[in-house]
Amino acid sequence: MKKVDIVIVGGSAAGIPAAITARRHYQDKTICLIRKEERVLIPCGIPYIFGTVGSPDKNLIPDGVLEKNDIELLVAEVLSLDKENKILKTSGEDVQYDRLVLACGSEPVAPPIPGLDMDGVFPVVKDVNYLSSIQESLKDAKDVVIIGGGFIGIEFADEIKKSGVQNVTIVEIAPHCLSLAYDDEFCIEMENHLISRGINIMSGAKVVSIAGEGTVDTVVLEGGKSIPADVVILGIGAKANSDLARQAELELSADGAVAVDRNMKTSDDSIFACGDCATKVSFFNGRPSALKLASIATFEARIAGANLFGIKRESVGTVGVWSTAVGDLAMGTAGLTEAMARQAGYDIVASTVDSSNRHPGGMPGARGTKTKLLFERSSGVIIGGQVMGDVAVGEVINTLSACIQKKMTAEDLVMFQTGTHPALTASPIVYPMVNAAELAIAQMK
Amino acid sequence: MKKVDIVIVGGSAAGIPAAITARRHYQDKTICLIRKEERVLIPCGIPYIFGTVGSPDKNLIPDGVLEKNDIELLVAEVLSLDKENKILKTSGEDVQYDRLVLACGSEPVAPPIPGLDMDGVFPVVKDVNYLSSIQESLKDAKDVVIIGGGFIGIEFADEIKKSGVQNVTIVEIAPHCLSLAYDDEFCIEMENHLISRGINIMSGAKVVSIAGEGTVDTVVLEGGKSIPADVVILGIGAKANSDLARQAELELSADGAVAVDRNMKTSDDSIFACGDCATKVSFFNGRPSALKLASIATFEARIAGANLFGIKRESVGTVGVWSTAVGDLAMGTAGLTEAMARQAGYDIVASTVDSSNRHPGGMPGARGTKTKLLFERSSGVIIGGQVMGDVAVGEVINTLSACIQKKMTAEDLVMFQTGTHPALTASPIVYPMVNAAELAIAQMK
Repeated sequence: MKKVDIVIVGGSAAGIPAAITARRHYQDKTICLIRKEERVLIPCGIPYIFGTVGSPDKNLIPDGVLEKNDIELLVAEVLSLDKENKILKTSGEDVQYDRLVLACGSEPVAPPIPGLDMDGVFPVVKDVNYLSSIQESLKDAKDVVIIGGGFIGIEFADEIKKSGVQNVTIVEIAPHCLSLAYDDEFCIEMENHLISRGINIMSGAKVVSIAGEGTVDTVVLEGGKSIPADVVILGIGAKANSDLARQAELELSADGAVAVDRNMKTSDDSIFACGDCATKVSFFNGRPSALKLASIATFEARIAGANLFGIKRESVGTVGVWSTAVGDLAMGTAGLTEAMARQAGYDIVASTVDSSNRHPGGMPGARGTKTKLLFERSSGVIIGGQVMGDVAVGEVINTLSACIQKKMTAEDLVMFQTGTHPALTASPIVYPMVNAAELAIAQMK
Repeated sequence: MKKVDIVIVGGSAAGIPAAITARRHYQDKTICLIRKEERVLIPCGIPYIFGTVGSPDKNLIPDGVLEKNDIELLVAEVLSLDKENKILKTSGEDVQYDRLVLACGSEPVAPPIPGLDMDGVFPVVKDVNYLSSIQESLKDAKDVVIIGGGFIGIEFADEIKKSGVQNVTIVEIAPHCLSLAYDDEFCIEMENHLISRGINIMSGAKVVSIAGEGTVDTVVLEGGKSIPADVVILGIGAKANSDLARQAELELSADGAVAVDRNMKTSDDSIFACGDCATKVSFFNGRPSALKLASIATFEARIAGANLFGIKRESVGTVGVWSTAVGDLAMGTAGLTEAMARQAGYDIVASTVDSSNRHPGGMPGARGTKTKLLFERSSGVIIGGQVMGDVAVGEVINTLSACIQKKMTAEDLVMFQTGTHPALTASPIVYPMVNAAELAIAQMK
């Protein structure tokens, strides 16, 4: 039996940074990362396999970073966890650990719809061979239906459309796509953009069954309408992969994730968990959070990896910062949306500004952008932001994330010293975040 | 004589936001903005007149924002200021004010070089007709020399080269271009980029005279070397335009700028000043700062405009956040450089990471980026950052600016919750700012 100081189970967006962080903080410890996959997919890159990058082989996390950090890699399935004796039984060697990090990720949720087991119906499983088989099925497909209009759904739709499929339809149960992350006015912009790219959107529509004879041929909606489908992709969401923790009788949260405290420690003092498999709470009110994002996984991994032999870091809960892009339209969101904030009981001030991302407007790449900020009225603290525009939106949202995490007020934002440049940003006179904050202050009086 | 509650002198990056901010905070006051220019140039856009946008007419600040905010515009030269009677004499109507904001801007510095008065030698004066005359002179120019390799100098050089001039040479007295804003490794990248675009760079070179017979034909360097020149552009820097304040016997600072306190109030309680004409101090040590940026002007204007009838806002000093772009290479800087920090007496930890701006690397627009962060060793507080990469750098630097302004520590940065996306940003596993912070922490131990 192999003896290792630190064992990480899982080799993706949580496992890798957990291992690297452990190495940085515990230079004299031995570290072993166990994963079942020969090759690990970049999770956020999966939709792009089907159009832009063209193959799962071009969307892999390289193993070099493990070698570089002196982290042993064991490709094997973990069969059981004996937490009393600190032993993992695996399909290869058994391993004894001193500290263990569970970074087991998540699995796609299967909605309660008859017909899911038919050929041609694919949940998004993060496996190279599986994704290659989806790609194979898409080759001859004429009608593709994506169930779920979240960011995975819209990205899959656009990439599959790009690959040459004639009819691509998103079916979303909510009134709008992306409505868990954006307020309606942003969702509608993205829907219109998708429609302009030839994608069909059926929102406010519930799938009641998937029909066919062994192989799918139709998706049936509530009300009787049916859509032809050679291939169906399920982009409904994901649930924590906590089988190992359950078997070992670690405490789980109500949603079945591995329960962790703010230090990412489980109910066993030698075992930590991070990423999609671990339970999460909201930065805003401490309630359970359903967010599962690679960027949250890396954040939690940096906590878990540092805390293994002495607590150094603490999670403030998930802010929820993410972005998406379809063609030349990018959108980012951080914190609460207006709808979420009102539902959570906040008295809010919202302000929105439309502006250009260049100055003067004749500079190359100039386009309209929309920035919406949300503040708690009595304190003036920023609790959310949404932005829409060009590729730089992916970083604008991180500026807003910094403001939210540091609980900056509208006054702080107005006093924000920005860098601006004609070829890169909005004019300093109308820098959207600053301008929106000033407009919010006027409403607070 | 016209009587107005609030008078702003100057209509550019300080004057406009001062007026707008005053309107937002004092809705029942009358506001008049006096400026001498019929049309106002976007200051940062001036280099782009010569290549990308093609004409001064395409680089103007629209007046619509004044009308929209019920701000009267008076196009006239202010001839004198009588602060006892609160009267401005102008080339048009005289105006009596209750509160006055001086937003008079700056003028190009003329270096002590013989020959500056020759035809073909142009300081960068912010005037539509004047810039049109530079453009006219460039039409037949074969050899253009830019004196000064700051951001104005390199942007002018690249735009003039783009416009078709055969030989464009930057002469910079320091060992590298941009060295007031970037550490050497960044400066060298930009210099190599400029060279690859056909621009000649002579750094560590001092101009001793400009020669010719009435019209410039040669720029002579220390050591005797001379460079042919049909046109010479001076991009040396700017000095505060404080003539009106001097005449009115307002207090000036040692460098001749209008002295202001942290509320942007001058030595007269009814007069405020902001932007290039006002004295500035560093965010880091409170010493005088020579920075003159449109984004600082707007920041100060939002303070001055809000404080006119009751102090509400205070300047923390200038952080110094700016970016530049040449072709597809963008660079941003915030706070102190390593060289500046060491000179100021900081014990610093510097860390640099090179990474991609996309994940996987096959995503469109993927390119290498460089991120350098500087932390004060004992506190771990971030005091500077430099980034190099694609267009999104213009916003990345604003995330760093938020971190610097809120005195975040390396630990805060490691705990930063980012938004990431394959088509927009680096991978969350190697998000450069977070990664650089973790590497810095390892050095602090």
